[in-house]
Amino acid sequence: MTDVKRYLKTNQKKFLSELFELLRFPSISTDPERKKDVLEAARFIKEKLSAAGAAQAAVESTGGHPVVYGEKIIDKKLPTVLVYGHYDVQPVDPVELWNSRPFEPTVKNGKIFARGASDDKGQMYAHIKAFEYLARSGRLPVNVKFIIEGEEEIGSVNLDAYIRKNRKKLAADIVLISDTEMFSNSVPSITAGLKGLVYLEVELTGPDHDLHSGVYGGAVANPINVLCEIIARLKDKNGRITIPGFYDDVVPLTPSERRSMKKIPFNLARYKKELGIAEVFGEKGYSTLERAGARPTLDVNGIWGGFTGEGSKTVLPSKAHAKISMRLVPGQNPKKITTLFIDHFKALAPKTVKVKIKTYTGGEPFVTALDSPVFRAASAAYARSFGKKPLPLRTGGSIPITALFKKILGAEPILMGFGLDSDAIHSPNESFGVWNYLKAIETIIYFYESYRK
Amino acid sequence: MTDVKRYLKTNQKKFLSELFELLRFPSISTDPERKKDVLEAARFIKEKLSAAGAAQAAVESTGGHPVVYGEKIIDKKLPTVLVYGHYDVQPVDPVELWNSRPFEPTVKNGKIFARGASDDKGQMYAHIKAFEYLARSGRLPVNVKFIIEGEEEIGSVNLDAYIRKNRKKLAADIVLISDTEMFSNSVPSITAGLKGLVYLEVELTGPDHDLHSGVYGGAVANPINVLCEIIARLKDKNGRITIPGFYDDVVPLTPSERRSMKKIPFNLARYKKELGIAEVFGEKGYSTLERAGARPTLDVNGIWGGFTGEGSKTVLPSKAHAKISMRLVPGQNPKKITTLFIDHFKALAPKTVKVKIKTYTGGEPFVTALDSPVFRAASAAYARSFGKKPLPLRTGGSIPITALFKKILGAEPILMGFGLDSDAIHSPNESFGVWNYLKAIETIIYFYESYRK
Repeated sequence: MTDVKRYLKTNQKKFLSELFELLRFPSISTDPERKKDVLEAARFIKEKLSAAGAAQAAVESTGGHPVVYGEKIIDKKLPTVLVYGHYDVQPVDPVELWNSRPFEPTVKNGKIFARGASDDKGQMYAHIKAFEYLARSGRLPVNVKFIIEGEEEIGSVNLDAYIRKNRKKLAADIVLISDTEMFSNSVPSITAGLKGLVYLEVELTGPDHDLHSGVYGGAVANPINVLCEIIARLKDKNGRITIPGFYDDVVPLTPSERRSMKKIPFNLARYKKELGIAEVFGEKGYSTLERAGARPTLDVNGIWGGFTGEGSKTVLPSKAHAKISMRLVPGQNPKKITTLFIDHFKALAPKTVKVKIKTYTGGEPFVTALDSPVFRAASAAYARSFGKKPLPLRTGGSIPITALFKKILGAEPILMGFGLDSDAIHSPNESFGVWNYLKAIETIIYFYESYRK
Repeated sequence: MTDVKRYLKTNQKKFLSELFELLRFPSISTDPERKKDVLEAARFIKEKLSAAGAAQAAVESTGGHPVVYGEKIIDKKLPTVLVYGHYDVQPVDPVELWNSRPFEPTVKNGKIFARGASDDKGQMYAHIKAFEYLARSGRLPVNVKFIIEGEEEIGSVNLDAYIRKNRKKLAADIVLISDTEMFSNSVPSITAGLKGLVYLEVELTGPDHDLHSGVYGGAVANPINVLCEIIARLKDKNGRITIPGFYDDVVPLTPSERRSMKKIPFNLARYKKELGIAEVFGEKGYSTLERAGARPTLDVNGIWGGFTGEGSKTVLPSKAHAKISMRLVPGQNPKKITTLFIDHFKALAPKTVKVKIKTYTGGEPFVTALDSPVFRAASAAYARSFGKKPLPLRTGGSIPITALFKKILGAEPILMGFGLDSDAIHSPNESFGVWNYLKAIETIIYFYESYRK
């Protein structure tokens, strides 16, 4: 057994109990009532960073939830790794579908069940433990800086300003992020591309007050029906998004990228079975992996209007709402797509309704060069810990700040994810494998060693 | 001043304070938590019926909320009038849009603001007061029976069984109902036709758990998008409902009916202004009054799915729901339409989703013969109290039990409404004019007198 493996084995219990402490903070960044819990999670991270050997550890204010910073500078001439992660989590509703309490971590069948277990507390905390091993034993081969934010789940609204303001302090060669998934535990993969995000909320107003559907139905346009009609027209029957110009800037998949995706051992029958669906559906002419990973998409994330309680109420409502997001691929610009969406949506709306559209912070798409030194170092680390060369994988998840680090700091992002699809992030019963958590710590340690060479 | 007018003037304060007492019961029949309040409203009605001079007054159990019964039999050889009304009310949400508390009646600009003020407590209670005047003064010219139910707003689920069980006790020549609207206070009208109702709730299930829209979006059908697509396809661009066979049994409006509707002094500009809409929309080839009153319609009364809280959550939800109702016109059968809807909806649903459909109790459409003795008596009563001959009006509201009384008891329904469009029934800030309340009592007294002749 190597030193690293022995160290992991000896400290496994401690690693888990510390992560559990972190998972107990209900740090839901979108919920104003959780502000204090978010702050307490930040303070916890700061203490653990200090304890692991980071200097300058601090909870730093932003316009919203704070950023936790910490660093260990070995030698200014050495390369610098900036570790990014987030300690905030998604809401937990529908809470009644959880089998255990979302903020009371529970281990079952080798998995840690808790909101944030995989996204991103578990993956982020693995970095602090990997760093601790190297820093405490004097084996840290490069400079390390940590930037752990509390607003990733609400679009990192204040991160851009924070990074710009702290450009010098944050200066780094690469940004190391573990907030993504692998193909499977036996088929490790590195995320080589991420989608961008545009997120909007639309509100349609028909009559200025709720009406009786018997008295006015059929004579006055119903904003729910109108909203459905508009949403239906956002895609055609081939699953293509109908927004004019939407695909104009998409960098098409190259034949070699498509070939490489075909090599991924994807089992459609198992995929459908795991999701409980009879059929998949997506843009015509592309495989499921291509649709999910490499093509732009549009989804309604939420819809509401009228009477939604128990029983029947014959109302023709005044308003209807929807939250709609689009995932973008390299070439597409979130600002441009936002404008195209708004123009198209308004053009589809009949005169019978008024339209209001609110935008949430989105993010730009990102792709990694597979032949860069940092990608090679990450590949070597996985190969060493998993015993298998990892596949490069393009996925649909968005980490909007990835492009930000590149743009402001010039730092090359590398996405070393250790989660799995089955972790159910953003859903009830989110989990993270105990094995994955320990494997993450191990792989990250190896990464520092490979990257140094 | 006539006796009746003098009596109304003398007792106005008492009439209002009694109605206010009744309006204070939050008797929302659809809300299981309001069961006790519904019962207390029933008990109040029973006491007031007794006090007004009714015999056999009783709160009678059904499978759900009780029916209040009372009667005054003068002479078995005389005609019998069965007065129907309801003491239950609609829910109050969105409660934040009310300007005063829904169950604390408030008079402002001559209007009583409270949930149920117009629908139907105010209109129903006017009957008890009109009856009291005639019964106490020994001038009641016919037999009167009261059946006041507590489940009208949830589809009168137990009324059919109650009427069948009490067929003999309820035997009557006509059923007198005040639960509709007039054209305006200066243009009185009598509802000569009512639509039937079919009310359904659909549930679409895509994946069996909520998914991350970044990871699965574009590859797995989103049940909200699918629901919108299906709903959009339920009507064509001309506002026609696309369900095969939907219009097959519709009895078309006759040229004379259309001419009579054209005579109604309807002001489209004012209608749009009152609703705050720029355009009306409905079935091509029909006027607004025809669409609202005499053509079958389809509305989504409520829709929900995915993340509907504050902020952004990138979920691809497992489920999407909608409440959908259809208003039917003479000739259409609710059971047949229900089947046609379900078949069509399921046929429109792609294999990517599972569909569940729940039906709520509906009702059959109804039309009155304008030359019947009872319609003539009602017309004479309005003419006497309003000083103007009332217009016969077909409207879109459904009182499903209207057809029931006809079928089971053979009693001819007559709909003497005193509400107004602007009463905002089923909406926040429901109201009923003080003038309308008193005019209702007066007109009902005259009706008994005309009907007796």
